[in-house]
Amino acid sequence: MKIFIKGTGLTRFGELWDKTLEDLISESSEKALAEAGLSPDKIEAVFIGNMLYGKISGQDHLGALATSILKINAPAFRLEGACASGGLAVQSAIYALMSGQFKNVLVIGAEKMTDVSTSQISAALMGAGSEMERQAGLTFPALYALMAKAHMQKYGTTKEHMAAVSVKNHYHASLNPNAQFQYQIDLKKALSSPVISDPFTIFDSSPITDGAGAVVLSTEGKKDDVYIAASESATDTLDLSGRSSLTEIKATSIAAQKAYAEADIKPSDIDVLEVHDCFTIAEILALEDLGICKKGDAGNFIAQGNTKLGGKIPVNTSGGLKACGHPVGATGVKQIIEVSHQLKGNLGNRQVEKARVGLTQNVGGTGATVVIHILKKEQDE
Amino acid sequence: MKIFIKGTGLTRFGELWDKTLEDLISESSEKALAEAGLSPDKIEAVFIGNMLYGKISGQDHLGALATSILKINAPAFRLEGACASGGLAVQSAIYALMSGQFKNVLVIGAEKMTDVSTSQISAALMGAGSEMERQAGLTFPALYALMAKAHMQKYGTTKEHMAAVSVKNHYHASLNPNAQFQYQIDLKKALSSPVISDPFTIFDSSPITDGAGAVVLSTEGKKDDVYIAASESATDTLDLSGRSSLTEIKATSIAAQKAYAEADIKPSDIDVLEVHDCFTIAEILALEDLGICKKGDAGNFIAQGNTKLGGKIPVNTSGGLKACGHPVGATGVKQIIEVSHQLKGNLGNRQVEKARVGLTQNVGGTGATVVIHILKKEQDE
Repeated sequence: MKIFIKGTGLTRFGELWDKTLEDLISESSEKALAEAGLSPDKIEAVFIGNMLYGKISGQDHLGALATSILKINAPAFRLEGACASGGLAVQSAIYALMSGQFKNVLVIGAEKMTDVSTSQISAALMGAGSEMERQAGLTFPALYALMAKAHMQKYGTTKEHMAAVSVKNHYHASLNPNAQFQYQIDLKKALSSPVISDPFTIFDSSPITDGAGAVVLSTEGKKDDVYIAASESATDTLDLSGRSSLTEIKATSIAAQKAYAEADIKPSDIDVLEVHDCFTIAEILALEDLGICKKGDAGNFIAQGNTKLGGKIPVNTSGGLKACGHPVGATGVKQIIEVSHQLKGNLGNRQVEKARVGLTQNVGGTGATVVIHILKKEQDE
Repeated sequence: MKIFIKGTGLTRFGELWDKTLEDLISESSEKALAEAGLSPDKIEAVFIGNMLYGKISGQDHLGALATSILKINAPAFRLEGACASGGLAVQSAIYALMSGQFKNVLVIGAEKMTDVSTSQISAALMGAGSEMERQAGLTFPALYALMAKAHMQKYGTTKEHMAAVSVKNHYHASLNPNAQFQYQIDLKKALSSPVISDPFTIFDSSPITDGAGAVVLSTEGKKDDVYIAASESATDTLDLSGRSSLTEIKATSIAAQKAYAEADIKPSDIDVLEVHDCFTIAEILALEDLGICKKGDAGNFIAQGNTKLGGKIPVNTSGGLKACGHPVGATGVKQIIEVSHQLKGNLGNRQVEKARVGLTQNVGGTGATVVIHILKKEQDE
């Protein structure tokens, strides 16, 4: 069964001090409904991905909040899976559509992160990891730095490889009017910036971001519509210390293998990807665990320009989490919006030529949850 | 498509200071798996309902937490819809099963509420309401008291009617070894207890509770298995002030009408119900909005003993939220467990005779989310 993307809506990503979460939900959803050509009464269910709002603002019950604001009389579900909340919301919506109960549903990913101090948001984000990790004083930069160090030791990955991810994603973001950081950086700047958790400098790390994305998903489509050809997710231990390996995110491989089978494609069929580069090493891990590169090869592959616009297989044309920004619950939905526009072919100066198959990879924590979606265009079949 | 309840597991409900949320998840899930006769590797997805744990403990990402603890390698989803989180988790699991992607899934509802002060938990629970309500200084007892006052004025409902709900539910809980308050009270005690929010005394109000419930749901069943004949939910404004009426919960009527059509039953076919009596008025509203009683008649109907064990239509045989306890994210799952055992006929001294059709009603906030499930037994068809 094909699930079609009938409409998409995205807010600007950034430090949006003049916007509330409600504003972001409204703006993204109204754009998605307008693009789909549907009025709110045609929406039969709402799925919203959000990680932190209850914790930092006091407000839970975001499903009913969204239907209240949008004047949609329909069931509503809030999904949370840390930074994979948006991907899980999309996946849940797909199950609901596949169940035959609904024709059109709205999926929203939204996060408002800049209303509290950096130390508060940093502590709140550690809810994605384990209690042991929190009590040990670990933060997410530190956890991913452990993975980076292990990857450097085992495969010879370098700081320059990681910085290349950042330079490339900043270049892509410079072409994206919705991105948080619409400017380019060079390798020297990335490497010489302050270290936040060795081996990471500030430019290896995604920022704190406000933003929202929304998509209208439907069981009905027509020629040229983009559809979701596979929706798969997998889990692993919450603790990094419980994993079988520090140099791979196993949940990515598991979900990807299922998704490839479901969409009947192989990694080499993919034309464009949005992956979860919360830290630069995560983009390297993603390309390897998705089977785009052999294990240990992704650093070089990226540094050689293969994943830049115009390269063999452009990755994170939105600017990724690094430079487009990472409003955690919104990221999984934004990835799908970016790839769907790539397949539609309407992204102007950041358009990937003849993109026909796209993939999104959305990660929660250090890989305890991974959600993979594969997108295609109806005419492909 | 029928979704069968293959196994159920419940912890004791109460102030469980010696148990962590992880303990409660393990205990309920292991019981459910044992009853289903399934090992963890047969579970293809996990859905967990929880409202407050991120807020009060720091730990989010409960889907992956659950699969980590239970050693289940499968996708995992956390659902939140305030006090309807458990019901929404069940409904999401049903969509996933109906999508054809899975055969056996585990649904967990879990909440650990007694680790923080009463004022902290009371503030945390207000996340179920609106920001305006929080800023106005409203609490949930006050919000439901407004509904009670309106119902008293419009329909002549009395404090005695409401106290009768509490007396009946305490009687039922006295027969339930998992209930928080396994003792009876009389009308005088209920009416003469301290007022917490006029017209409510402490005995009109559900307690703060730790507890968890888990069910294994499956697409495959056999004769005598209990199955879910309908799963429906609806939303209304988050704000009580936005509703068309203070004397009904419209989301209950909307979801119930759909559920009755889906299960092909009418209200008079129902033999046993678990409804969301977070405050005594809520049980009165539920019986009316579900169509069991005419609007305004439920107070008398309950006071006359019709909803007590042995009466016409027993309601909340578990003791309800009032006396079995209300671990918010667990309640929707517990209701399904109680009704499924009633239909199986194995509840001993609180068994309803010849129960063939059961209903659960799980409410989030003051009725911004309502989830209805109708349960039947396979031999019925």
